[in-house]
Amino acid sequence: MNSQPRITLVTGGARSGKSALAETLAARHPGPRLYIATAEAWDDEMTQRIGQHRDRRGAAWQTVEEPLDLAGALRRTDGQGVRLVDCLTLWLSNLMAAGDKPAQQVPALCQALAAQHSPVVLVTNELGLGIVPENALARRFRDEHGWMNQAAAAAADQVWMAVSGLPLCLKPQRGIP
Amino acid sequence: MNSQPRITLVTGGARSGKSALAETLAARHPGPRLYIATAEAWDDEMTQRIGQHRDRRGAAWQTVEEPLDLAGALRRTDGQGVRLVDCLTLWLSNLMAAGDKPAQQVPALCQALAAQHSPVVLVTNELGLGIVPENALARRFRDEHGWMNQAAAAAADQVWMAVSGLPLCLKPQRGIP
Amino acid sequence: MNSQPRITLVTGGARSGKSALAETLAARHPGPRLYIATAEAWDDEMTQRIGQHRDRRGAAWQTVEEPLDLAGALRRTDGQGVRLVDCLTLWLSNLMAAGDKPAQQVPALCQALAAQHSPVVLVTNELGLGIVPENALARRFRDEHGWMNQAAAAAADQVWMAVSGLPLCLKPQRGIP
Repeated sequence: MNSQPRITLVTGGARSGKSALAETLAARHPGPRLYIATAEAWDDEMTQRIGQHRDRRGAAWQTVEEPLDLAGALRRTDGQGVRLVDCLTLWLSNLMAAGDKPAQQVPALCQALAAQHSPVVLVTNELGLGIVPENALARRFRDEHGWMNQAAAAAADQVWMAVSGLPLCLKPQRGIP
Repeated sequence: MNSQPRITLVTGGARSGKSALAETLAARHPGPRLYIATAEAWDDEMTQRIGQHRDRRGAAWQTVEEPLDLAGALRRTDGQGVRLVDCLTLWLSNLMAAGDKPAQQVPALCQALAAQHSPVVLVTNELGLGIVPENALARRFRDEHGWMNQAAAAAADQVWMAVSGLPLCLKPQRGIP
Repeated sequence: MNSQPRITLVTGGARSGKSALAETLAARHPGPRLYIATAEAWDDEMTQRIGQHRDRRGAAWQTVEEPLDLAGALRRTDGQGVRLVDCLTLWLSNLMAAGDKPAQQVPALCQALAAQHSPVVLVTNELGLGIVPENALARRFRDEHGWMNQAAAAAADQVWMAVSGLPLCLKPQRGIP
């Protein structure tokens, strides 16, 4: 009997401990572990960050890179143990850079999530809690990102927010309206 | 018997589901529903956003526009059912653009809230959780906005924060210092 | 018998009521109260802010200024009652401006915290919840600040987040993974 959630979303700010929390939650599932990286190493800053995350996870994880077709990657790897997707923010950024429409791709991802048999832990960011960006592209990204987060949280059985490295449970919650 | 709160505040980041949560909470109150819009459609982005919100609310809502005199609008509409004010952030922005002083207008709003007999649901934003803005005007707005939020939350019986479309109850809370 | 926590961290956004919450929590401890200010008044904005905080605290508080050697200040003042450190964000900013390495200074601060006998209340900011800053220095500060917050939260017995003036308990929390 497994009482672990099937779909888990971990959100939080920059350097809030989201990825470490997601790894802890994923490691509760028995069996093999697959890391689905949406990041592409475009510059030194990113290469270093990817290396830090890989070192922390250690050898128990297999890694696949999938910057765009996340729904396909989940379908292809269902049945292969828990999948940790890190992260939706970069996936959305990659999508928009490639000219794909979030209004089509996000629902397609949610359909793929609904069809999964093996567990999935998704990492995303909270990035709409600052001053309105002056840059129109940043405003559009912030909008699309917020709608994506709402869809992913609705599709998840469990949602956590990392704050200063501490987990705050957002779903399920007692006393929800 | 009505155990619903009289004054409710809904806060959250951009595209966090604040307005939808506020509508859900307002719709729990029986009787007519009045939407008090503080937004003025200055550009295409805003016109589109106002239209999206209006479409979602549907025909059960009457709408009045009040960019500045929110205290007066609440007094004039008390007794006409639940009022949903969306949002305090734009109201503060309108005030400051008009040269009004938040240090006078925010307490006046709180006095009007304290005198209400019919329920009010207020929407605001959390916008102080990013890096310090380089722009001095943005810093001042962020300061005034934070003080306004503190005053509104103190005046409210119930406060919710929307995160990725999920409600987090901030007031009343067990274990408050 | 004193069931108050020894180390408390209060985080939150700009103008979220962090300092007032920290003062409330510190004032629960009996005995003298010492305010350790990391701020230096470099401009009018900061001078005014420091003055506002001092006026609110009132005469029950002694104040010492320590922009850099926070670990030393805590060691020197242990046994002198509760210490309120406001705030870690400015301390980190001072450190980095002085060319000190957060990777050395943050662990040194945590060691000093672990050795304290008298209570300490620390104030910090959540500042990683906006759009990625365009400025590389701001991104680096955001990273270092997030890691500092994680270390401080791990070292604390109790962690609170202020949102719109309301306290949200992050640690201890029921249902932590």
